[in-house]
Amino acid sequence: MTLTVSALAAPAANQPLARTTVEVRTPGANDVAIDIKFAGICHSDIHQARDEWGVGLFPMVPGHEIAGIVSAVGTEVTRYRVGDRVGVGCFVDSCRECANCLAGEEQYCLKGEVGTYNSRYYDGTPTNGGYSTAVVVDENFVLGIPEGIELSEAAPLLCAGITLYSPLTNWKAGPGKKVAILGMGGLGHMGVKIAHALGAEVTVLSQTLSKQEDGLRFGADHYFATNDPATFTELENHFDLIVNTVAANLDLERYLGLLALDGTLVHVGIPTEPDQVKMFWLASQRRSIAGSKIGGIRQTQEMLDFCAAHGIGADVEIISVDQVNEAYERVIRSDVRYRFVIDVATFGSDA
Amino acid sequence: MTLTVSALAAPAANQPLARTTVEVRTPGANDVAIDIKFAGICHSDIHQARDEWGVGLFPMVPGHEIAGIVSAVGTEVTRYRVGDRVGVGCFVDSCRECANCLAGEEQYCLKGEVGTYNSRYYDGTPTNGGYSTAVVVDENFVLGIPEGIELSEAAPLLCAGITLYSPLTNWKAGPGKKVAILGMGGLGHMGVKIAHALGAEVTVLSQTLSKQEDGLRFGADHYFATNDPATFTELENHFDLIVNTVAANLDLERYLGLLALDGTLVHVGIPTEPDQVKMFWLASQRRSIAGSKIGGIRQTQEMLDFCAAHGIGADVEIISVDQVNEAYERVIRSDVRYRFVIDVATFGSDA
Repeated sequence: MTLTVSALAAPAANQPLARTTVEVRTPGANDVAIDIKFAGICHSDIHQARDEWGVGLFPMVPGHEIAGIVSAVGTEVTRYRVGDRVGVGCFVDSCRECANCLAGEEQYCLKGEVGTYNSRYYDGTPTNGGYSTAVVVDENFVLGIPEGIELSEAAPLLCAGITLYSPLTNWKAGPGKKVAILGMGGLGHMGVKIAHALGAEVTVLSQTLSKQEDGLRFGADHYFATNDPATFTELENHFDLIVNTVAANLDLERYLGLLALDGTLVHVGIPTEPDQVKMFWLASQRRSIAGSKIGGIRQTQEMLDFCAAHGIGADVEIISVDQVNEAYERVIRSDVRYRFVIDVATFGSDA
Repeated sequence: MTLTVSALAAPAANQPLARTTVEVRTPGANDVAIDIKFAGICHSDIHQARDEWGVGLFPMVPGHEIAGIVSAVGTEVTRYRVGDRVGVGCFVDSCRECANCLAGEEQYCLKGEVGTYNSRYYDGTPTNGGYSTAVVVDENFVLGIPEGIELSEAAPLLCAGITLYSPLTNWKAGPGKKVAILGMGGLGHMGVKIAHALGAEVTVLSQTLSKQEDGLRFGADHYFATNDPATFTELENHFDLIVNTVAANLDLERYLGLLALDGTLVHVGIPTEPDQVKMFWLASQRRSIAGSKIGGIRQTQEMLDFCAAHGIGADVEIISVDQVNEAYERVIRSDVRYRFVIDVATFGSDA
């Protein structure tokens, strides 16, 4: 049994998004049905909708930063009730049996977690994302959004927020730690807010100083331009942790040189081409390069609770459904401060 | 004031080592004079004696794996007495003021530590290494060699031993951890012994199975050949820590694929050419690549005490001074099990 709901989909690779309808299953015993209120636009939505990663399933309804209200629950659901404020992030199922799932790190599921869109459930059914009026998700993959965060500002936390919170906490950003956030976009602005709230000394490394005022408002202690060579001498051997949010190949010698003894450069922006690294740049100060991918369900809930406790939401620009194609172009130009969020009410009658 | 002692030196780049004499300073107030008994041959001795790194100071007396007996001490020396069994490793001074020196990590001195050879003291005087009958070193850079380790088997601990002990303990090799040692040479065989003594489950990854019997005797639980492609499927997502002792560029995709969630590949063998790394290989299981360089004085003493407590020494082949040039060729062919050590008594009369 299914329900037909409004959605915005890419009909095929390289076609603009267009209004359509999709089928949503009626809730099973463990399912939560969600009336979507807001859906964030992540840069990876654009890569996938345009099939730039070459693995697109079309028609594709993007969106993995979902915030809404529970409209129905299955008979076995215990965690959520109708009317609850909830969110869905980048995945809606995982094998639940592998070592990583059992450790609460479902995003690293060894069988492969089920993506919120552009993916298939283990039974082969395609998944549809948040650019839609409704979604049905197993309660184990639904997050509670605490009171105190607007749903529109909470939506981007489900991907951008956890993508930064996870490495910042795993690598122990906190009092006494010097942390740099490389890039001041949708991911980076969340990194600044969260690292500051964790108590770290936060430096933004951005191409220019154009967003310096915002960075300091978000909680940065320092702001440096990477187009100024002096940045790399002044900050040599300085940071305990750099989180790179930019999905571009870096001059790793320069950036690793900014790390102090035992410092780590964590990539959450993942360029598709390989980087060049000399192991000497690492061994000379026992440095590390690492990569990190969103976070598990347990940690995502912890992040939402942390953000609510610290009054942290994303800085968003709310748009209508019919502005999404234009918004994609602006994201590509980095012309957004700092996350577009679709107001799902603009679908109209069924929303 | 100086003393003239016998030594083996490379007169210039690309010339064979030859017997000569060098001047050793008379001990200052904080100095320890050491009669050298054994000096290990490290592969890096060959690189430097042949000026393959392009920074050679000639004539060069190599040797940074030094074991001997204290012959005299300065008036202010408190740690050592005449007759003590002592060692000297890869450096003989550091700035003692930078954050890393103050943290006991002198090998990462931000001013640059003073190498035991092919280096200069801060006053400009060149340093001479262990292929010699005597050396004078500030007591703060001298290690005590506990009873229970033969001096010949202790000498290689000062470089090969600490080079493995440091990353193994820093990355918490121990009970419940799956650790791979990549390469079964002078460094690798120490890694197997130490990782086993630390309580880790130890796997050797070697090109072939030719040294399997030795590896198991040293304490390895498993032994795999890297020339067998099945190794890379059988051990996928398996290790918490891989210590790479091979100074050659790796197919990082294959080796990173052997790491489990949160696993780290630490390089102590440092190839001169860059490696290619896709950040996706790291982010897909929150893996890290790191580099590590010997260890500080405090940790080196800890390692010597640990090795003595666990009955660990290097497996050595003792040679005479006049066999060193031939030994270099055999090291290059990996024809040594597992470390050449020069018996300094073979210098003759003044030894």
